[in-house]
Amino acid sequence: METKYPLLNTIEYPSDLRKLQKSQLKQVCAELRGYIIEQLANNPGHFASSLGVIELTVALHYVFDTPNDRIVWDVGHQAYGHKILTGRRTQFKTNRKFKGLSGFPNPKESSYDAFVAGHASNSVSAALGLSVGARKLNIDSKVIAVIGDGAMTGGLAFEGLNNACVNPNNMLIILNDNNMAIDKPVGALSEYLTSITTSAWYNRWRFKIYHLLRKIGLMNDRKRNRWLRIGNTLKNAASGTHNIFENLNIRYFGQVDGHDVLQLVKVLTDIKNFDGPRVLHIKTIKGKGFTPAESEATIWHAPGKFNPETGERIVSKASASLYQDVFGETLLELAKTNEKIVGITPAMPTGCSMNIMMEAMPDRVFDVGIAEAHAVTFSAGLAKAGMMPYCNIYSSFMQRAYDQIIHDVALQNLNMVLCLDRAGLVGADGPTHHGAFDLAYLRCIPNLTIASPLNEAELRNMLYTAQLPRKGTFVIRYPRGCGQGVDWKDQPFEEIPIGKAVCLQEGTDVAVLALGPIGNEALRAVNSQCKPSAQASSVTELVEVPETSVATSSLSIGIYNIRFVKPLDEETLHSICKTYKRIITLEDGVLQGGFGSAVLEFMADNGYSLPVKRIGIPNQFVEHGSPAELYHMLGMDAEGIAKAIEG
Amino acid sequence: METKYPLLNTIEYPSDLRKLQKSQLKQVCAELRGYIIEQLANNPGHFASSLGVIELTVALHYVFDTPNDRIVWDVGHQAYGHKILTGRRTQFKTNRKFKGLSGFPNPKESSYDAFVAGHASNSVSAALGLSVGARKLNIDSKVIAVIGDGAMTGGLAFEGLNNACVNPNNMLIILNDNNMAIDKPVGALSEYLTSITTSAWYNRWRFKIYHLLRKIGLMNDRKRNRWLRIGNTLKNAASGTHNIFENLNIRYFGQVDGHDVLQLVKVLTDIKNFDGPRVLHIKTIKGKGFTPAESEATIWHAPGKFNPETGERIVSKASASLYQDVFGETLLELAKTNEKIVGITPAMPTGCSMNIMMEAMPDRVFDVGIAEAHAVTFSAGLAKAGMMPYCNIYSSFMQRAYDQIIHDVALQNLNMVLCLDRAGLVGADGPTHHGAFDLAYLRCIPNLTIASPLNEAELRNMLYTAQLPRKGTFVIRYPRGCGQGVDWKDQPFEEIPIGKAVCLQEGTDVAVLALGPIGNEALRAVNSQCKPSAQASSVTELVEVPETSVATSSLSIGIYNIRFVKPLDEETLHSICKTYKRIITLEDGVLQGGFGSAVLEFMADNGYSLPVKRIGIPNQFVEHGSPAELYHMLGMDAEGIAKAIEG
Repeated sequence: METKYPLLNTIEYPSDLRKLQKSQLKQVCAELRGYIIEQLANNPGHFASSLGVIELTVALHYVFDTPNDRIVWDVGHQAYGHKILTGRRTQFKTNRKFKGLSGFPNPKESSYDAFVAGHASNSVSAALGLSVGARKLNIDSKVIAVIGDGAMTGGLAFEGLNNACVNPNNMLIILNDNNMAIDKPVGALSEYLTSITTSAWYNRWRFKIYHLLRKIGLMNDRKRNRWLRIGNTLKNAASGTHNIFENLNIRYFGQVDGHDVLQLVKVLTDIKNFDGPRVLHIKTIKGKGFTPAESEATIWHAPGKFNPETGERIVSKASASLYQDVFGETLLELAKTNEKIVGITPAMPTGCSMNIMMEAMPDRVFDVGIAEAHAVTFSAGLAKAGMMPYCNIYSSFMQRAYDQIIHDVALQNLNMVLCLDRAGLVGADGPTHHGAFDLAYLRCIPNLTIASPLNEAELRNMLYTAQLPRKGTFVIRYPRGCGQGVDWKDQPFEEIPIGKAVCLQEGTDVAVLALGPIGNEALRAVNSQCKPSAQASSVTELVEVPETSVATSSLSIGIYNIRFVKPLDEETLHSICKTYKRIITLEDGVLQGGFGSAVLEFMADNGYSLPVKRIGIPNQFVEHGSPAELYHMLGMDAEGIAKAIEG
Repeated sequence: METKYPLLNTIEYPSDLRKLQKSQLKQVCAELRGYIIEQLANNPGHFASSLGVIELTVALHYVFDTPNDRIVWDVGHQAYGHKILTGRRTQFKTNRKFKGLSGFPNPKESSYDAFVAGHASNSVSAALGLSVGARKLNIDSKVIAVIGDGAMTGGLAFEGLNNACVNPNNMLIILNDNNMAIDKPVGALSEYLTSITTSAWYNRWRFKIYHLLRKIGLMNDRKRNRWLRIGNTLKNAASGTHNIFENLNIRYFGQVDGHDVLQLVKVLTDIKNFDGPRVLHIKTIKGKGFTPAESEATIWHAPGKFNPETGERIVSKASASLYQDVFGETLLELAKTNEKIVGITPAMPTGCSMNIMMEAMPDRVFDVGIAEAHAVTFSAGLAKAGMMPYCNIYSSFMQRAYDQIIHDVALQNLNMVLCLDRAGLVGADGPTHHGAFDLAYLRCIPNLTIASPLNEAELRNMLYTAQLPRKGTFVIRYPRGCGQGVDWKDQPFEEIPIGKAVCLQEGTDVAVLALGPIGNEALRAVNSQCKPSAQASSVTELVEVPETSVATSSLSIGIYNIRFVKPLDEETLHSICKTYKRIITLEDGVLQGGFGSAVLEFMADNGYSLPVKRIGIPNQFVEHGSPAELYHMLGMDAEGIAKAIEG
């Protein structure tokens, strides 16, 4: 190790980096890049994004006085280089592991992580708050937001930009333009950014004059705005171009080669003491420095393990289909027979497998870019026009479209489908990405049907049922990862009666009421003969079959696959309340207001008073780790369920 | 009436309007304006917005084939003229009344109302969906979004614009630029729109050439984009300006005088058959045609009753303070002693009374424009920088910032205050504006303290408590309208212990657990001597003291002011569960997952099995009406509570 990273090993903190000569920075970048490739080959994580900002990361920490100056990383899976340079190099091997480093910037982990990151497009607003706040408190702290062109399409980023010039601040926005989100970026902004061709001589010229005026005291805050506007006019006259940022009164510098670390250091040094909001537009290549990643950035966004020499990806064959593929393949199948079906995804066609339909029917899938709110309201418009939209958004990102679900969809009782992929605990991505809240935040909304399937076959039939006539707004939530390994492909479609639960096993003592795939854990807890293979379930991945299986218990245990948290199957619930002595509810969601609470509400409204034990995600932000570790920690795996059944 | 509105009375539907000569349209506008002024003088509603779009409304229905062509009104309180021209003239006197016309476009009410409106900035996305959907279904339906410059700052509008050019569509966006939201607009976009100075000859010239090319078959869809770009270059060369819409590949036409109905008809006729997304930028005056409204548009946004001749507003003196004023005045008082306090509002300084602090301390209040998500994340940035932000957003609009509360605020456990004004049923504004869901959608989020005061004095002390050191994220929700008339001004501040309930009256049979001001209804239900004046409460406004008061009941009734839905006062709940025979929970929020559910969860977790009756908003979108009518209908007033107590 020592010989491979001679400079990197001397850098514990940015203060060490800042002791180096400028001429050594290229070497630092090369070592940092090599270190990340080596580490990621064995310990999977977000890959291509971090490689794309190596030079920017080194330049930022070299030029700015971090952590007093604050870097706000947007999304944040580009921050591996940042973590390694800020006291976490030796810990980096624990990245994304249980109780290890977080895969995203995390203020709880380090003072160098200025703000939480995970959901796109928040950096401008957050950095603006940090910058305005510092000024109010008379603290000299420079604030830098680093935002990708993909995240720039999110409405929140625009709201931030629209407010950037309103209050005195010195925010520097680095637009990291790699012409990529996870998938290719879409929308007019992306096209526009590509077309900005600011004349280099103009920027150089304006900058020098500005600097000179400042030095000789002829430029102050009051004059800045006027200068800016004169600057814009001059610039337009000079280069014949127009600039969306300068339209919003944010000074624009660019474009700069984001892989030329010395150029970056020079530009950052030049503009760092400027007052007022600025954008520095840098061009980078996602996956820079690792050839396979450069050419296939989507695959290498988070490639899993790989051979760092050959670039061969080490893909472990799953024994069961991914839920997302059940969605993707079934959607295409349904779209072939129902011509009103269209698919909508905000920048996640690969992540939710809508790319399957996109390839087969490109004109019936809409990737709207990072724009969850628009995805839902646009889908609502399509539904109102008579189409049958399937809008697929990860559970935690659906939080971005909450008002749109209430106001634009449910209030109009539209016939459409909202699919929430990555519902429940997602594992290594941690608290920003867990789909913990959806059952609670959706259940209170009138007019929604909310379902979660036990397995692949049921997901398939829910997707089928949702597009049948007059089903209203149909929500289907399912987890990340693999299903149970049951047959689902090419099976005939079956309509699932809305609000009907299924009894998987009858009993008289304890009734386990389970919503979604976590019901398989209940089956495992109760029946030792019912063991899905270790890889077959996202929940049970790597988990041994529990020793506490209650198959030999003297209790008579009933297990119910509830399927619909809304409407509840009241008939079945009445029967359960009259038959059993105790109830256990089981859900892969937060316990406050979720499925278990729905059961309690039913019981209170109908005068039942059986004891109820609710199993689910407690009221805390659950950290990252493997799903197995997390579910075990929270008593939500077969072992925990078995214990709860024993009472 | 007949003599005052000779033309208007002949128009039942737009088809009648379209039979008129162009030369008669000015007269139609004059009559429509007069009719609205006359109606609104007696039956209060949103006033100035609708007056501003009289000419646009007439021109749109004259030129377009509504309802086959679809008009999507953004926000929608500008749609009174639209309602009157589309079959609802005689019903208009029921506007905003219980079981009467909705104050907003409502597809359930009329096929002319193409999409729900109420929350700003959704029109572009919705119209895009309608337009793309119509094309997919080979339906020839033109779609028009009418959006104000205030709503254009919302991130959702930007997400829509960014996607406008991606899919074939013929959406026409009318940018209704009156340089106003409810308050003055803010942000760079607003400044920018003012500065657009498109040369008239250029637009005329480009338009004519385009038209000619289309006629002679040299222009088709494929060529459109190229033309657009050439057009932009020419335009920039011609006028020396740049245009944010054309940067996003949306053709721009403007500016046009929005009060010249013949000019509007001409321009709309000219561009209506163009293909591809277009913006028509019209300049209007909010309140046009009614002098007092033109000069004070904020006050006349929704002025209440007034004298249509003199413009004198008929303000009924309330006997109690508005909750919003308790907030506004207390905030200023606190800000004077705690210099870290700042106020943040998304375009509602007047609505939430933050204008009180804004006037006294302009540099410590941030009105960020219609941008709820940014408001929260910007506040989070300020909090992270060490400030103490009070971010005030109406409950139903807070739905727009849901992800930001989870991801940017709660996850970092920031010391800041979220104030939800207009929580609970808001009355005449109806289902888009009811603050019904906040308790359910917030309660599931870790790290939040969620409080609701019984009255003005408690609100004041909650606002005080929230800014004391290390209180974390403090949510305070309170309703629209007047308080209880209790003394609150200039009282010494008292810290309220977090998570402590208060017993208002002890008992042994039935315990009423109430959250927020609705607790006063419980007091009224139980104690006939405790009668707040009819005007003193938003809930009881106009309601007689119920005859069913149970003051003489033989039951021993306890009443608890719960104050905190999170954390719950478990000590008091234990004591209640051990003391009483029955529990009634009372909240001004949806019953699924709200306060009552929290009590059920506590009881289940602790093995209590008392009967619980939950009173709150049922799982439906509650229509509009006076608060008294709505609360009575739902059994949430003193009478309903008394009945529930009797069992």
